[in-house]
Amino acid sequence: MVKKNAFYAQSGGVTAVINASACGVIETARLHKSVIGKVYAGNNGIIGALQEELIDTSKETAKTIAALRHTPSGAFGSCRYKLRSFEESQAEYERLIEVFKAHNIGYFFYNGGGDSQDTAHKVSQISEKMGYPITCIGIPKTVDNDLPITDNSPGFGSVAKYVAISTREAGLDVSSMCASSTNIFILEVMGRHAGWIAAAGGLAQEQEGDPPHIILFPEIAFNEAKFLMKVKQTVKQHGFCVVVASEGVHYKDGTFLSDSGQRDAFGHAQLGGVAPTLATMINEKWGYKYHWAVSDYLQRAARHIASATDVEQAYAMGKAAVEFALVGKNAVMTTIVRKPGKTYRWEVGEAPLAEVANVERKMPRSYITKDGFGITDACKAYLQPLISGEDYPPYKNGLPQYARLKKVLVKKKLTKSFML
Amino acid sequence: MVKKNAFYAQSGGVTAVINASACGVIETARLHKSVIGKVYAGNNGIIGALQEELIDTSKETAKTIAALRHTPSGAFGSCRYKLRSFEESQAEYERLIEVFKAHNIGYFFYNGGGDSQDTAHKVSQISEKMGYPITCIGIPKTVDNDLPITDNSPGFGSVAKYVAISTREAGLDVSSMCASSTNIFILEVMGRHAGWIAAAGGLAQEQEGDPPHIILFPEIAFNEAKFLMKVKQTVKQHGFCVVVASEGVHYKDGTFLSDSGQRDAFGHAQLGGVAPTLATMINEKWGYKYHWAVSDYLQRAARHIASATDVEQAYAMGKAAVEFALVGKNAVMTTIVRKPGKTYRWEVGEAPLAEVANVERKMPRSYITKDGFGITDACKAYLQPLISGEDYPPYKNGLPQYARLKKVLVKKKLTKSFML
Repeated sequence: MVKKNAFYAQSGGVTAVINASACGVIETARLHKSVIGKVYAGNNGIIGALQEELIDTSKETAKTIAALRHTPSGAFGSCRYKLRSFEESQAEYERLIEVFKAHNIGYFFYNGGGDSQDTAHKVSQISEKMGYPITCIGIPKTVDNDLPITDNSPGFGSVAKYVAISTREAGLDVSSMCASSTNIFILEVMGRHAGWIAAAGGLAQEQEGDPPHIILFPEIAFNEAKFLMKVKQTVKQHGFCVVVASEGVHYKDGTFLSDSGQRDAFGHAQLGGVAPTLATMINEKWGYKYHWAVSDYLQRAARHIASATDVEQAYAMGKAAVEFALVGKNAVMTTIVRKPGKTYRWEVGEAPLAEVANVERKMPRSYITKDGFGITDACKAYLQPLISGEDYPPYKNGLPQYARLKKVLVKKKLTKSFML
Repeated sequence: MVKKNAFYAQSGGVTAVINASACGVIETARLHKSVIGKVYAGNNGIIGALQEELIDTSKETAKTIAALRHTPSGAFGSCRYKLRSFEESQAEYERLIEVFKAHNIGYFFYNGGGDSQDTAHKVSQISEKMGYPITCIGIPKTVDNDLPITDNSPGFGSVAKYVAISTREAGLDVSSMCASSTNIFILEVMGRHAGWIAAAGGLAQEQEGDPPHIILFPEIAFNEAKFLMKVKQTVKQHGFCVVVASEGVHYKDGTFLSDSGQRDAFGHAQLGGVAPTLATMINEKWGYKYHWAVSDYLQRAARHIASATDVEQAYAMGKAAVEFALVGKNAVMTTIVRKPGKTYRWEVGEAPLAEVANVERKMPRSYITKDGFGITDACKAYLQPLISGEDYPPYKNGLPQYARLKKVLVKKKLTKSFML
């Protein structure tokens, strides 16, 4: 094989374990220096490639790269920047190939969700067309767990663990105060179109009657009257009511319960504020005292309580991506395959990028209870292994010690700069 | 000494470690059964005493009591119920003494904040007056860290650790996305009148320029123009800006930035919503994209990442309370005394309840930077030891295993019930 450099980029919302995938890519590539020269990381994701801002990961020590495994967020910077169709974004695709060519890059590892797998797929097609073929391997990542084919997505297990633990802990708090104070606690979690994260709150429930008492999914149209009745019944029976609500909860007509009006680069609504909306709704109807929390970035950055399973899988996905490239695979995404049997076991698999791109996997209806407010045993059986195990980062002075990179940029070779 | 039973109650907002104090009380009392008969815990705090709902802790196994050490929230139930002056609440004080007498209770351990220490003080005075003297020992507890005399309050260290870690983690998240997406992240934390919790966010900062870039304290009147300018400068310099805001932030005239309108039993405003208020303010002025989080109960229930120092001190405060009673002390609160010297060392001390009651300790001005937006080195030196060490609870199936109590109620002896 001709020796080529590799390009790795992080895309979209970051997670507690996306750097573990980066660690898997870089550590594995370092074992095959005769084939893969250097690993360049995009400074702020694909934007780094377009602007020829390539971070030379060979300048980072083995210790720093190893520390990526326990460092949350996107160490090289990520971005919300979507390449559209070849016709709409032709200049961008051409620029990418131009940059890759200039830096002798033959491998493209793209770590992201559905939109990113679509980009990886297009780069693979276009590089062929332009006569500079590039091996494109997708590495799955999304806290939303909405990628198809793969059994789950790295990043999700750790958010799920955080939400399940937080629900259990806050549930104990409310239950101990409800006799004379707060009766209602609402936790708003991420999940724009898929309710996987909200569902994970259901794992907190060990016995009948334990919180959460109500889970609100984007998959189930919000019915105000039914919801308010369920809240009242729950408070009557248990003295308090804990609700885990997905940010994507919406009415039958598609209107989100709360829409801040902001839009991201992909045109998606930036949500937030479902929790206070629900709290006010309950208070106005029944007068109950409430508290609410919006965990926002805290949930997806919570490396301090990451799922050991998630960390292991994130690393494995990065490692496998390089191994796939080394054996000549192309235009595929690494996947997690759950093996049959009662004990949870998994292995690495693959999915053609063409089949992954832009397909959104929602919760199956069979994972949601009949009344639409809880998760079924089948759902618990699916979710539970994903939050298994603790993988604590090292601490110093009471705080987790996360990697700090030098981020040395490769010298530019192109004379033209590129306007986004 | 004549053998008497003890009464223990949890009061006010619960914490990640108040049960560690309960554990200290019960385990220590069990070592002195010839003097202290049984430990009865108030079902839902002092309300349990008034309504003669006493939980017989002797019915709980040693294993369950030991598990209290790693269980957040108030295992016996807490309440927001304040006894006023003797004149205003005479019937309640008389009822308390009546219940204590009926159950041969000679020791009153009250685990709470300033209001509760006031109640303990009054019970001590009134029991003398009514000819049924009761040994009253206060055990400090408050996430707000606003009790006087004691160097810090159990419960605070763990919230501080949670807020510092969350700030560091979310800060990494925003920093990795800011090139093309969110520039502003606001974390709203507890602290109605004292900014200790918000200050703890400052511990996340390791190097100049690290988040948080702005801390908003209730001790510093909010100046909108100055704040907005600081936000702009920070984004210009670092590309993003992380703000940790106390729920109690208010304008010069005392108006809170956000007041939900609810009042608790003590008449305090129930706050919430400072984060979205600030986010909107910034967005309207500068147009920056934002995210915000309100951690609410999550922060004070986060036993999964409790400070080992805090857990140890909470236990020690409960243990010392019983030991104080055994040597005949009365009307005092156990305290944490910081010993002089560079290495952090502490010991158990005491403070007269009369001096603790209703005194609120705010942040000294010397702990806040001149511009009012950060913490000084002196503040860091004070805070850092309090978040030191990790004390992880046991896990099963990916979730922390917290104590479940039987809560067997003692048979009532009084014929009259009591209306609150």
